[in-house]
Amino acid sequence: MRVVYGLNPVRELLRAGGEGVAELWVAEGAGRRAFLELERLAAGSGAKVRTAPRARLDRLAGVDGHQGVVAVVSDYRYADLASVLEAARGRSEPALVVLLDGVLDPQNLGAIVRSAHALGAHGVVVPRDRAAGVTPAVAKASAGAVEHIPVVRVTNLSRTVAELKEEGVWSAAVVPDGERELCELDLAGPSALVVGGEGEGVRDLVRRTCDYTARIPMAGRIGSLNASVALAIALYECVRQRRESSKTKMT
Amino acid sequence: MRVVYGLNPVRELLRAGGEGVAELWVAEGAGRRAFLELERLAAGSGAKVRTAPRARLDRLAGVDGHQGVVAVVSDYRYADLASVLEAARGRSEPALVVLLDGVLDPQNLGAIVRSAHALGAHGVVVPRDRAAGVTPAVAKASAGAVEHIPVVRVTNLSRTVAELKEEGVWSAAVVPDGERELCELDLAGPSALVVGGEGEGVRDLVRRTCDYTARIPMAGRIGSLNASVALAIALYECVRQRRESSKTKMT
Repeated sequence: MRVVYGLNPVRELLRAGGEGVAELWVAEGAGRRAFLELERLAAGSGAKVRTAPRARLDRLAGVDGHQGVVAVVSDYRYADLASVLEAARGRSEPALVVLLDGVLDPQNLGAIVRSAHALGAHGVVVPRDRAAGVTPAVAKASAGAVEHIPVVRVTNLSRTVAELKEEGVWSAAVVPDGERELCELDLAGPSALVVGGEGEGVRDLVRRTCDYTARIPMAGRIGSLNASVALAIALYECVRQRRESSKTKMT
Repeated sequence: MRVVYGLNPVRELLRAGGEGVAELWVAEGAGRRAFLELERLAAGSGAKVRTAPRARLDRLAGVDGHQGVVAVVSDYRYADLASVLEAARGRSEPALVVLLDGVLDPQNLGAIVRSAHALGAHGVVVPRDRAAGVTPAVAKASAGAVEHIPVVRVTNLSRTVAELKEEGVWSAAVVPDGERELCELDLAGPSALVVGGEGEGVRDLVRRTCDYTARIPMAGRIGSLNASVALAIALYECVRQRRESSKTKMT
């Protein structure tokens, strides 16, 4: 835990997404107008907003020059890709990695992290830009799973796909117009599943870097699946194929 | 569309879940205190709260005895089980029905309806009590799917399971401690999938009435799946088996 104080530093922190901000403390009786934007930003990132006497803020910040605002930050520690692959090797499992392209909604990211952990993925990779990072809101929506599965943040998702290929991990973009049906892919070996966010889905460059594109068989004449649901189905298909394949090996 | 007016009738309507309430109109300058509860209830069911001059409410209600509050209700038409099974027969498909036991959260119900439609279920059955009904919030969360898949409301879910069995539809409760793995079930024939809500899951009586209990293979040592995710995976497994089975028949 660390603290950030002062109007400008706290505003910049929150404007950058408020990552890790667990609590925003505002001094009692402070001019409210300047704090309205901060409180709105803090609430948006899932942080708790608290009001307290100025003396309490002095103690929190360790100084009295905090201008009536102190943010308590719990730094989330992102993992790196190498440690995710290492974890898979350590468990003697073929790697299973989730790559998210442009998931912006913290609820959605949390739901994805929860399913990814429950269905046995070894890690989740998110881009640094135009994507949700791990905030308290994400941790809550993940039902705590964020503590149990590593999240990696990268600058360039296509490069990650290329790096995975070098490590023998094949990537499949799960998209509505995928070239093959999900169950036609071989997902028993080391695999990465790439899903897109709420808006544009998997971007062209990322998609072209992937080894496959896969679609989930849809029966409704109209309709689509939420990104977290599509991913959960793709993860299930991996689990199913891996069990089938280990049964075959045993007989 | 119909209107309900007067403090008590509107309060009762909203307390019963506010089903179908699209808008709550409150007269300008009305004593606010009496309306606070109504506005809170309306917001909770996803209705829009609007303020307007009393004359506008007179026109909406068609009378002036509305006590300053008018609810605009768009009646959602629930289907019956027979018409769901009929729809399956009409499409020459083995029935695929979703039964929800105690899903309370409108967001969750909406997400389930969306996936159920996209993955080709013929209908969704919800209990009348202790469960979310179709409200505007549910319609929104379903991404409009609620207009395309019938929702049936029943008094007794175990009885529905029994009725389905008489019609040759076998029911599987999808529960964390299911006796078989999902992919070991034969879901290519007429099937119903039963999932539980956020709290207690599938209740014992309902579970005992089902023909099977099935679990989704979980790889995480801890962790669980959200009801809508678990259901989507089970629906995918049905779709997968049905495609496999039709391929086999063709060869």
